[in-house]
Amino acid sequence: MKVYIIGVGLIGGSMALDIKKIYSEVTIFGIDANEEFLEKALELNLIHQKATIETISEADFVILAIPVDVALVILPKILDVVTEKTLVLDVGSTKFPICEVVENHLNRRNFMATHPIAGTEFSGPTAAIENLFQDKTNIICEVEKTAFKLQEKGLELFKKLGMRIRYMEAKSHDKHIAYVSHLSHISSFMLGKTVIEKEKDERDIFDMAGSGFESTVRLAKSSPAMWTPIFNQNKKHVVNSLEEYILNLTKFKEYIENNDLESVFNEMKNTNRIKEILK
Amino acid sequence: MKVYIIGVGLIGGSMALDIKKIYSEVTIFGIDANEEFLEKALELNLIHQKATIETISEADFVILAIPVDVALVILPKILDVVTEKTLVLDVGSTKFPICEVVENHLNRRNFMATHPIAGTEFSGPTAAIENLFQDKTNIICEVEKTAFKLQEKGLELFKKLGMRIRYMEAKSHDKHIAYVSHLSHISSFMLGKTVIEKEKDERDIFDMAGSGFESTVRLAKSSPAMWTPIFNQNKKHVVNSLEEYILNLTKFKEYIENNDLESVFNEMKNTNRIKEILK
Repeated sequence: MKVYIIGVGLIGGSMALDIKKIYSEVTIFGIDANEEFLEKALELNLIHQKATIETISEADFVILAIPVDVALVILPKILDVVTEKTLVLDVGSTKFPICEVVENHLNRRNFMATHPIAGTEFSGPTAAIENLFQDKTNIICEVEKTAFKLQEKGLELFKKLGMRIRYMEAKSHDKHIAYVSHLSHISSFMLGKTVIEKEKDERDIFDMAGSGFESTVRLAKSSPAMWTPIFNQNKKHVVNSLEEYILNLTKFKEYIENNDLESVFNEMKNTNRIKEILK
Repeated sequence: MKVYIIGVGLIGGSMALDIKKIYSEVTIFGIDANEEFLEKALELNLIHQKATIETISEADFVILAIPVDVALVILPKILDVVTEKTLVLDVGSTKFPICEVVENHLNRRNFMATHPIAGTEFSGPTAAIENLFQDKTNIICEVEKTAFKLQEKGLELFKKLGMRIRYMEAKSHDKHIAYVSHLSHISSFMLGKTVIEKEKDERDIFDMAGSGFESTVRLAKSSPAMWTPIFNQNKKHVVNSLEEYILNLTKFKEYIENNDLESVFNEMKNTNRIKEILK
C-alpha cells in the first residue's frame, strides 16, 4: 500500500505514525514545501521516503494536511492525476471552500472532505505523536459525493485510527466550528496578547500565573501559518462569533462597573452548565 | 496543634488534607456557613471536628478560605479574639481590600495576607485534593506587618506544603493578578456563554468541540460565589484588563474583515512568545 502524506506536520505526521502501525505492508511517502520538515520527518521515521507530486498517481491514499489556502490550490492538481483506486483526503478546519473548489472536478469522487477534531498547540514534524486520533471525532462532509468504494476505504482507515464519524453539511460544519474551535483560538491569542503587552517589562509577573492562565492561553501557541487562512476562509462565521463574544464581554464589564453583582453572578452561574455539556 | 479552617471548600479542604499529613499531632477544626459542606468535610476526613468561631482563641493557625467579601467581615472578628500565638492567614485572590480592612486593627500583627496560586475549576469539599500546593507560588503581601515570630510560623507551613514564596505590595498584586488570573476567568466564562447561546438548540454540536475548546473554557466551571466578589473588589484593574482585551479582539476582527492577513498572521506570531514566557 502506498500512502502519500502532503504536509508532514502535527496532523500529517501523526497520521503517518499510526498508519505505519496499522498496516504492515505500507510505504509512506512524504511531500512538504519545507525541505527541513521533510528531512526531520525522515529522521523521526514518520515517513519512509520523500516524494514529489508527479508520482502520486500510484497512491492508495493521499492525505492533504497543509494550510487550507494551499490545499485549495493543490487538491485539484492531485485529482487531475489520480487513478480509480486513490482516495484523497483533506483534514482542514474549513470544509465549504474545499468542497466548492472541486465541485465540478471530473475526479470529485476520489475526494473525501474530512475534519479530524484532534490536535495539540504544537506544530511541525516534531509535534507528531502516536494515537492522536484515538477516540476523537472525525467530521466528514458531502460524503455522498465520494465514490462508494472509496468511502469504505476511508471509513476503514478512520476506524483503525480509533475515530468516531459524524456526517455534516460543509456549510453547517463551518458555521458551528467557528464557535467551538475558531473562536477559542482567537480568544486565547488575544488573551495572550493582552497580558504580554501589559507585562512586557515585568517578565517575572508570569510567576504569578497559575494553571488557569496556562490552560486558557494554551492555544495561543498554535501555528499562525495554519490559522491565518482558516480565519480568512471562514470569515463570515468567525466575525459573527467574535462580535457575539465581544458583546458578551462588554456587557459583563458593564455589570462589574455598575456594581450589578447579581448579573455578574448569574452570567457565571448560567455558564457553569458547560460542566454538564462537556461531559 | 490546633488549626481552624474557615471555609472547607477546594482551597481550605486541600490545605486541611496536607496539614494532617505534615503535622502528626494536629486537630483540624472546620467552620463553614454551609452545614452540608461541614458534614461532607467530616465524612471525607478533611477535618476532625466541627467548630464555631467562639472557640477560635485557642488556635495556632486560622486559615480563612472563604469568598473575599465575607472575609472582609469575618477577619476583624477573628482578630478580636485571637491570642499572641495565633497566626491568621487568608488565601483570597484580592489582597488590597483585606489589608486595608485590618490596617488599624490592634491585632494586625496576627494576620498574614497570602494568595496561593493554586486551584482547579472545581469547588466545595469534594474538590479538595492532596498536594495541591506542591511547587506552586504563594504571594505574601505586607509581610512586614505580621509579627516576626508568626511570619516564621507561616513560612514554615508554606515550606512544608512545598510552596515557593514571593513578596509583593498588595496594590501591585491586585493589578497584576487582574491580568494573569481574573481576566482569564472572564474570557473563559464569556467564551462558554457565547458558544452555549449559539448552540443552545443543538447540544450535539459539542461533539465537535476538541481539547482546544475544552481547555479554553475550563475556567467557566469555576464557582460564581467565589468569583463575583473578587471581580467587584478588583473592579478597577479587572475593568482595565477587559477594556484592553476587548480592544485587541476588535482590532483582530477588523483585520479579518479587511482581509489584512499580514496583520492577522503577525498578531498571532507575536503572541506565540507565550511559549517561551510560560516555560
